[in-house]
Amino acid sequence: MTHRHPLRPLFGDVDPMEVVYYGNYLRFFERGRCELMRAAGGSYRQLADEEGLHLPVTEAHLRYRQPARYDDPLWVETSVAWLKKASLRFDYRILREDHGVENTLVTGYTVHACVDKNGRIRPLPAWVPNLLKTYLQSR
Amino acid sequence: MTHRHPLRPLFGDVDPMEVVYYGNYLRFFERGRCELMRAAGGSYRQLADEEGLHLPVTEAHLRYRQPARYDDPLWVETSVAWLKKASLRFDYRILREDHGVENTLVTGYTVHACVDKNGRIRPLPAWVPNLLKTYLQSR
Amino acid sequence: MTHRHPLRPLFGDVDPMEVVYYGNYLRFFERGRCELMRAAGGSYRQLADEEGLHLPVTEAHLRYRQPARYDDPLWVETSVAWLKKASLRFDYRILREDHGVENTLVTGYTVHACVDKNGRIRPLPAWVPNLLKTYLQSR
Amino acid sequence: MTHRHPLRPLFGDVDPMEVVYYGNYLRFFERGRCELMRAAGGSYRQLADEEGLHLPVTEAHLRYRQPARYDDPLWVETSVAWLKKASLRFDYRILREDHGVENTLVTGYTVHACVDKNGRIRPLPAWVPNLLKTYLQSR
Repeated sequence: MTHRHPLRPLFGDVDPMEVVYYGNYLRFFERGRCELMRAAGGSYRQLADEEGLHLPVTEAHLRYRQPARYDDPLWVETSVAWLKKASLRFDYRILREDHGVENTLVTGYTVHACVDKNGRIRPLPAWVPNLLKTYLQSR
Repeated sequence: MTHRHPLRPLFGDVDPMEVVYYGNYLRFFERGRCELMRAAGGSYRQLADEEGLHLPVTEAHLRYRQPARYDDPLWVETSVAWLKKASLRFDYRILREDHGVENTLVTGYTVHACVDKNGRIRPLPAWVPNLLKTYLQSR
Repeated sequence: MTHRHPLRPLFGDVDPMEVVYYGNYLRFFERGRCELMRAAGGSYRQLADEEGLHLPVTEAHLRYRQPARYDDPLWVETSVAWLKKASLRFDYRILREDHGVENTLVTGYTVHACVDKNGRIRPLPAWVPNLLKTYLQSR
Repeated sequence: MTHRHPLRPLFGDVDPMEVVYYGNYLRFFERGRCELMRAAGGSYRQLADEEGLHLPVTEAHLRYRQPARYDDPLWVETSVAWLKKASLRFDYRILREDHGVENTLVTGYTVHACVDKNGRIRPLPAWVPNLLKTYLQSR
């Protein structure tokens, strides 16, 4: 039901409070959904290059529970909250295993619209929900 | 009731869809609250250096309405939604004037807790709400 | 002979050593050359939109002398080292005034080629060197 | 003699020319030296936490030969150019395999000084050159 991808924050991701800068988790979320798509057998690039479609973010939310630090061995866990005709929502959890216990550091979501090169709303190509559903049901 | 600060996206802020990358608006929000504090007569740096306090973000939300583009003459508009004993919320609006009409591009908020160097919740020093209220009531 | 533009590092620009992350000075350099172009009466955007030309960086160099810190009132000083038929070099100095004394924090340069949308080398349009020379000779 | 680590540029790394933003290669270089240290059996974090030492960059150089694009399967190749008593230089190559041919996209180097928490130059702890030499000689 979810996909996990490993991450390690760089020095350049971390701020003077020695924790990952709050804006950089949106980069980690992008990594999560990008790698979920790839694991499912598709890719953002394919969507753009072959179909001329993009999935711009229309809404994002983040809840910061515990800080991630430099070089922490993190995971970004990504799932699909819902799929509609021309939009979808990904849910994310950034977590770190500490002595065998999973700690949830940050949770959040992004909502995406499907648009063509002129910014017009377009239906998601059928292969996108198909791949995502098939992959996530197999987990 | 609000504070405005000008912004121009760099090439490095913009993604291949030729719009500002969704994560970079959180940098623009930081610029907004930082400059609001300065305009009100205080600063984040003062809070950290003189009081040993930080205001980490505990929650963030963004709604992307229209895209901002490279070198657009933008404004970040910042206000204080509420102030509690040990937390506060800033509201933001990124806007661009197009032929005399103000277009709202992105809206959002950040919630902050007041913590000391050990991460313990601490009351906001009285000068923070005082400065912010006095400044924003004068606008 | 030079152009100056003010800068203040964000929390998101600074790393756990409490100094600006070494890669972010290349963003400050971009701000410098972009604002030099604007002050001279042109812009990168004009070059791209009206002429279909870009100035990708072919080489960059940075020397880190003293660290810049969060919210420091910095200047980026930009000048043109040379102009050739299809390339040019900008030189940069990041500086901070400390008690009336100018401290040079970072110096560097970027070399740019002029290319069209297909990546082919093209001569710089005459207005680019003309504007830059006229502006910088007036300083 | 060298270490390789895989990389894939995010949307947030790429600029409107659809190539990786020139400043973001310095993040890729950081990834390279960080993972070289780890592969050799040490880490930056260990240096900071156990010895109170840092390796700030004193000089950086980049030559941009061919562009890297969104989601390209890249490698960052890192080696040690020289080691002195209190400084060292890493060399980098960003490359992409295209139909079995290795294309060099970006080359560069970073020079680092070894300093303590007060910014004073300190000798590199012996384990740093020992680990790096042993590891790179085994390649």
